Amino acid sequence: MNGAESLLNGLVDRGVDVCFTNPGTSEMHFVAALDQVPAMRGVLCLFEGVASGAADGYGRIARKPASTLLHLGPGQGNALANFHNARRAKTPIINVIGDHATYHLQYDAPLTSDIKGVAKSFSKFVGTATSSNQIDSMVDQAMKMATSFEKGVSTLIIPADVSWSEVSSSDVEPLEGESWTSIGAEVETIELGHARELLEADAETLLLIGGDVLLSEGIKMIERIKANFSVGVLAETFPSVMDRGGDLLSIDRLAYLGEMATAQLSHAKNIITIGAKEPASFFAYPNSRSLLAPEGSNLFHLASPSEDPLAVLRELIDLLNLPRSSSKNRFERPSIPDGDLTATKVAQTIGALLREGTIVVDEANTSGFSLPSATKGAPVHKWLTLTGGAIGQGVPLATGAGIADMDSRVLCLEADGSSLYTFQALWTQARENLNVTTVIFNNQSYAILELELAKVGALETSKSARRMLELDQPSIDYSQISRAMGVDSIRVSTVEEFVKALNHSFDSEGPFLIEALLPPGIS
Amino acid sequence: MNGAESLLNGLVDRGVDVCFTNPGTSEMHFVAALDQVPAMRGVLCLFEGVASGAADGYGRIARKPASTLLHLGPGQGNALANFHNARRAKTPIINVIGDHATYHLQYDAPLTSDIKGVAKSFSKFVGTATSSNQIDSMVDQAMKMATSFEKGVSTLIIPADVSWSEVSSSDVEPLEGESWTSIGAEVETIELGHARELLEADAETLLLIGGDVLLSEGIKMIERIKANFSVGVLAETFPSVMDRGGDLLSIDRLAYLGEMATAQLSHAKNIITIGAKEPASFFAYPNSRSLLAPEGSNLFHLASPSEDPLAVLRELIDLLNLPRSSSKNRFERPSIPDGDLTATKVAQTIGALLREGTIVVDEANTSGFSLPSATKGAPVHKWLTLTGGAIGQGVPLATGAGIADMDSRVLCLEADGSSLYTFQALWTQARENLNVTTVIFNNQSYAILELELAKVGALETSKSARRMLELDQPSIDYSQISRAMGVDSIRVSTVEEFVKALNHSFDSEGPFLIEALLPPGIS
Repeated sequence: MNGAESLLNGLVDRGVDVCFTNPGTSEMHFVAALDQVPAMRGVLCLFEGVASGAADGYGRIARKPASTLLHLGPGQGNALANFHNARRAKTPIINVIGDHATYHLQYDAPLTSDIKGVAKSFSKFVGTATSSNQIDSMVDQAMKMATSFEKGVSTLIIPADVSWSEVSSSDVEPLEGESWTSIGAEVETIELGHARELLEADAETLLLIGGDVLLSEGIKMIERIKANFSVGVLAETFPSVMDRGGDLLSIDRLAYLGEMATAQLSHAKNIITIGAKEPASFFAYPNSRSLLAPEGSNLFHLASPSEDPLAVLRELIDLLNLPRSSSKNRFERPSIPDGDLTATKVAQTIGALLREGTIVVDEANTSGFSLPSATKGAPVHKWLTLTGGAIGQGVPLATGAGIADMDSRVLCLEADGSSLYTFQALWTQARENLNVTTVIFNNQSYAILELELAKVGALETSKSARRMLELDQPSIDYSQISRAMGVDSIRVSTVEEFVKALNHSFDSEGPFLIEALLPPGIS
Repeated sequence: MNGAESLLNGLVDRGVDVCFTNPGTSEMHFVAALDQVPAMRGVLCLFEGVASGAADGYGRIARKPASTLLHLGPGQGNALANFHNARRAKTPIINVIGDHATYHLQYDAPLTSDIKGVAKSFSKFVGTATSSNQIDSMVDQAMKMATSFEKGVSTLIIPADVSWSEVSSSDVEPLEGESWTSIGAEVETIELGHARELLEADAETLLLIGGDVLLSEGIKMIERIKANFSVGVLAETFPSVMDRGGDLLSIDRLAYLGEMATAQLSHAKNIITIGAKEPASFFAYPNSRSLLAPEGSNLFHLASPSEDPLAVLRELIDLLNLPRSSSKNRFERPSIPDGDLTATKVAQTIGALLREGTIVVDEANTSGFSLPSATKGAPVHKWLTLTGGAIGQGVPLATGAGIADMDSRVLCLEADGSSLYTFQALWTQARENLNVTTVIFNNQSYAILELELAKVGALETSKSARRMLELDQPSIDYSQISRAMGVDSIRVSTVEEFVKALNHSFDSEGPFLIEALLPPGIS
């Protein structure tokens, strides 16, 4: 058994049986090892940002890590943006990077670069193997780090000679001296009693919840609290996964736009966070505060980042000894509109047609403002968002979610500009015949930047500046790109066409792409 | 004048008048400033890897830096691979990254990450502005670092509040305490006399040349040395720019494959490098040496990385007092083959039809093995290669070269797998109406990895491993992707069709893409 086989065996033994790969020369022994370890499913991606985004989507749905296999520093660079999003989603991932042979690094060959320095920017743990005998214990450590709170990316750097050298099992080397980095905060003492006092106090109290608390178990516990205390509830702005619909309590998310978020929080005297961070604006703007909570309000973190917020919430429910809630939270579904499509009409149509068990991946950005309210009344579904703000996440995320759950339908709601970053994921959807429906919101612009250009006070702009935000010269045919990559597609401009296309895809096997032609800008 | 305007003015004042942009919210003041500084040409790119690759191509042809404008850490991550290639090409670039407002960083908003830590992996200089009054002197320092030997990437991190704050010119702040990193080596003493001794010695001496020595001035000086001493000449494997064809001395490049490179060097007793590094193999392999020169041979670096190798070479020519060479170095051009296309026939056809002044961008990889010999007899042209081994460089590099020289034709020779990394550059070619002809070598596989899989000794592979190297399930339609992005295109499978398409593009204005359908693997 060589180092590469030891790695794959070590991963499979610990339940990691999917690898999103974009390998190069220094990873050829891992590719060869796939034949020796058939339990590992290799999924080829045509760009590293697809591999990292797919691993994120896989982890969010499968609730366990996938691995990635990438080629040296530049391959890791291409994957960085979606690893950044995964870090913000707290998704467990085992990221394997091949490096030059240990004795070859000194010659500074063309592909040599600082892999560890870059990996630290998104990893919770970074280990470099110096012997094939270390690999199994390194995989063990990487798994522990990736799957403990707060979960994250563990990066293993494996030099080529380590991967091709035989393992001498009698000589397992410890990992002393391996560098690693923790991005989690220190453990705080949980003060459940203080939380009870705040809940029982006669003051405006708000629960700001996030992370795993947004899974159905957590939402049901939050509902029991809400039924017994006069508290408001908000979810973090960009959840990793949020269970929604059906009989679940409907929870608004803190708004992306600072003015709206400030209004949502304006009455809060006490804010209790459970699995969420202190509310701060996404960006700073001239003459605006960064923090969103009212001045003078009290903030209390019930669970620290290194604790399982669901476990802490269970303890609180026990302490409070609350009855189970049996309320139904049904909302009306929107009726299907008609006429030429707008972003709002796309949202209403999705709200009307969304089916039970759908996994929704939302990177619709400015075209998606109406989506949360339009889908409140839909049957039970999951909602995955752009956690780290690095666009180009949606299509890969949907691909990974589709690998994690081959039976459910994934609905990927994707802004036009963002889709172009990592559209290569469509090819993997076709190759693996994944049940992914992609809707491209084609408004022919970086509409979010038009909004932001106004917000930073740069209103009086002329042609040169505007030209940096327009995608219509030339216009792009997203449905044609999709077919070129092997995914059947259609272009629609009316609600009637959109309804037909969406139902067709929901009734079919395999991937499909619908390009919705919208008016320019926000509609 | 705010910080953003100060930056654009500072760049334009120092001759940097092109900016490849993929901006976000934190860069909106720079976008707005484009209206105030019309001398700066903003070129919109739909992916950051296009911006960094285009800046590399621009710098190689314009012989001065372009700037890039990118959005925070993830945007820089997407640009990393082509900045890595630019670092290896020693291309001067001013890389501007927006960051959160200084006072906003503490809240660890979703897009916050370690920008400087990642920038250090490819930058020669990294500066972070803390006041708008610093910006002009920081631009000055960045320009000096980028354009001094060895040239490279200077990164400027500009927080949003620094870019929107007014500059108070009476209070220019010095840059003390700014962190920066040099990746150049220390200056060595030049020993021209020792070089003369080696040239005059009765031993096999080889000149290994690279960098600016491969421009026509350098090649002409090398020719004068070759005419007077019994020396061999080889060029580095992956030059930034190499002048070729016409009456220029034809110089073979050191082979990419280690066995071939070892054979090329096998007779050398003395190796004098001028602008090139000690020859080492691209990758290490089991039971192969990393260094390629024969054991016992002497290596002498005539110019260190921090010296201008052309200037050193001029001094050597003066010392040697050599006459000018008037030889003609004409080679036969290949005749046009016929029948179904192979990679070799594509190369022969290009060798037969290449026109004077063409800028060739070569990312043909395994499909390009015949290109150097087939184009030896072509009229004068420039040849740009994949300097850092990070694939996905060709289409952006050609785009930047096209911006730098709007009058010449750029011929981009592009492998299928590599083209998919950064195909978004086609849109910029269409938008700016650049004279770029792209030829896609569609062999439906990562052929180079099939080669490498065999080389690392992993020969006996079955379906799982092979499936990681094949791009044919589903097959990809590159000509359709091109049209979807606004670049007219054609698919060809015979030499006759290829000749017609190539001449059509050479005779036309604007971009065009030819997808050459080849047999699978290496042909």
